[in-house]
Amino acid sequence: MARILIALGGNAIKQAHEKGTYEEQMRNVRYTCERLVELIKMGHQLVITHGNGPQAGALLIQQETGVSLGIPPQPLDVVNAMTQGQIGYMIQQNLMNLLKKEGLNIPVATVATQVLVSKDDPDFQDPSKPVGPFYTKEEAEKLKQEHSHWVIKKVKPGEGKVYRRVVPSPDPIKIVEADAIRRMVDAGIIVIASGGGGIPVVEKEDGTLEGIEAVIDKDKAGERLAEVVEPDIFLILTDVEKAYLNYGKPDQKPIDRMTISEAKKYLAEGHFLPGSMGPKVVACIRFLEWGGKRAIITSLDKAVEAIEGKTGTHIVPD
Amino acid sequence: MARILIALGGNAIKQAHEKGTYEEQMRNVRYTCERLVELIKMGHQLVITHGNGPQAGALLIQQETGVSLGIPPQPLDVVNAMTQGQIGYMIQQNLMNLLKKEGLNIPVATVATQVLVSKDDPDFQDPSKPVGPFYTKEEAEKLKQEHSHWVIKKVKPGEGKVYRRVVPSPDPIKIVEADAIRRMVDAGIIVIASGGGGIPVVEKEDGTLEGIEAVIDKDKAGERLAEVVEPDIFLILTDVEKAYLNYGKPDQKPIDRMTISEAKKYLAEGHFLPGSMGPKVVACIRFLEWGGKRAIITSLDKAVEAIEGKTGTHIVPD
Repeated sequence: MARILIALGGNAIKQAHEKGTYEEQMRNVRYTCERLVELIKMGHQLVITHGNGPQAGALLIQQETGVSLGIPPQPLDVVNAMTQGQIGYMIQQNLMNLLKKEGLNIPVATVATQVLVSKDDPDFQDPSKPVGPFYTKEEAEKLKQEHSHWVIKKVKPGEGKVYRRVVPSPDPIKIVEADAIRRMVDAGIIVIASGGGGIPVVEKEDGTLEGIEAVIDKDKAGERLAEVVEPDIFLILTDVEKAYLNYGKPDQKPIDRMTISEAKKYLAEGHFLPGSMGPKVVACIRFLEWGGKRAIITSLDKAVEAIEGKTGTHIVPD
Repeated sequence: MARILIALGGNAIKQAHEKGTYEEQMRNVRYTCERLVELIKMGHQLVITHGNGPQAGALLIQQETGVSLGIPPQPLDVVNAMTQGQIGYMIQQNLMNLLKKEGLNIPVATVATQVLVSKDDPDFQDPSKPVGPFYTKEEAEKLKQEHSHWVIKKVKPGEGKVYRRVVPSPDPIKIVEADAIRRMVDAGIIVIASGGGGIPVVEKEDGTLEGIEAVIDKDKAGERLAEVVEPDIFLILTDVEKAYLNYGKPDQKPIDRMTISEAKKYLAEGHFLPGSMGPKVVACIRFLEWGGKRAIITSLDKAVEAIEGKTGTHIVPD
C-alpha cells in the first residue's frame, strides 16, 4: 500500500499515428485508466499528472486559423489551462467509470494547477521548445511581424514547412496550488494535477502571480508535484519498458537499477536524450535528492510489474 | 459568517462589446474577484460557479476553422471541459493574488466537473440553445452534410449569416464530482466548480458515464452544486441589480423580495425572460424547495450590499 505519483506520457492519451479525434483519445485514456485501476485494486493511492503536447499543438493551430474570423488567440498559460480541463476530464470520467465497475467508491478530481517559474530562467533568453504548427519561411516572417514577442526557428533541414515557433521551457520551481492539492489528497481524493507541466506563472515584484508564455516539462513539474504530495514512489510511464545505456546503438543495454550517482554519470555521458529520457532521469534524481525513496521509469503496460519490482528502471538513493 | 454559492454571469469574465482578448478577460476577472474578496473579508466562505458562453463560442469557431488544417474538432463535452480550465484558471489566479494582498491564506482550486443529464430530456428531441458561429444558408447546408447529428436553425430574420447550430440544453440532474467537491469545501478550499453548466454526461445502461453534445444552463447547474455544498445563501450575480415585474415596459417594477409561490406565479405570468432571468428564478425556486433558506439575484457590483440585505431580489420560502 503505497502512495504513487504517476506521470503519464503522451502515448497514454494520443498515439503518434493518430489524428487526435475524441474517439481515439477516449479509447487511449480508457486503456490507460484500466492500467491505473490495477494499481488502485492493489491498494495503492494514486496522484496523476500527464502531458499535453498534441492537444496544446492542436489548439494552437485552431487558434491561429481562428484569427481570420476575429477570435483573439489566447497565450500559452491559457492554452495549458484549457488542455488541463480537456485531458483531466477524459481521465476523470474513465477512471470513475472503471472504479465504479470494480465497486470502488473513490472520488477523482482534476485541479487546475499553476506552476511557478523564474523570469530569470536562462530559457527565456534562448527558447528551445517547439510548439504548434510548422511554417514556411514566408509564413514565419509574417508571423514574426504580427507577434513581436514570438521566436521562430528553423527546426528541420530542407525547404518548405520547416519553421516552427519555439517557446521557453523554464525549470519549474514550485506548485502554486500545493496547499489545495495536499488537502485533497489527504481527503482521500485521487487528484489529477499539473497536466502538461502546469500553467506557467511568474511572480511579480508585488508578490502576485501572472501567466507567462512558456511550456514546462511535465516530468519535471511532476517532480515538484511529488514534493507536495510526498509519494512513496514516483512512477514515470512512457513508451519504453526501461531506460537504456547507448540507446539505439548496437550495444544498447537496459538499465534495471541505478543510484543517483550512477544516473548523474550516465546523464553526463549523454546516454539519455534531451527532450526525451533526459528530463525523466533528471526528474527522478531531483525526487530522490529531495528525499524520495524510489523512482521508476517504465512503460504504461508494465506499470504493475514495475511496482512489484519485476521490471522497469529503478532509480534509488546512493 | 455564511457559506455562499456564487453563480457568476457572463459579464464577470467578458463584456458584450469586447473581443475577448486575454487582457480584457483577465481585467474583468480581476474586477470580479475584487468584489468576491470583499465577501471573503466579511468572513464568508465561497463556492464559485460561472458561465462560459463567449469562451465556448470562440473555441467552436476556432475548431471549425482548424478542420481545414486537419485538426479534429472536439465535441461539446470537451469544449466545456476546456473552458472550465481556462476560466477556472483566470478566477483562481486573480483570487489568490487578491487574497495574498489581504494577508488571507485560503487555498483556491478549480475542479473539472461533470453534470449528469437524462438521455430522455425533451430538449434532445428539439434542441433550442444556439452555440458557435453564424452561417449562411449554403454554409448551413454543407455543415449539416458533414455533421449528420447537427441541428442548424435560422435564428434571425433576413438573409446572410442568420443560421446557427442549436444544441440541446437538458436539465441538470446531479453533480458527478459531488463527493470530491464536498470533501474539498470541508477541507477549507474555495472551490470553483461546474463552470459553464458543467460537462454534460449521460448514464449508459451499464451505469458508466459518457459525454454528450449539449450545453447545460449554468444557473440550474449551479443550483445542483448548491445541493452538494449546502450553502446558506445561493447568490446569482448578473448584469441587473434586481429582477423586475414587466421588465422593459413603462410600468416595470423591481422586486425586492418574493416567496416561492410568488416567484412561481410571476414566472407563469411571463415576467422573466427565458434564457435570461427565467432560468435564474427557476434555479432559486429549486434551491429553496430543496431546503435552502435564501436565494438572491443581483448585480456583481451590488453583491456585498445584497448579502447585507440592502438590495437585490431576495427569494425566500413561503
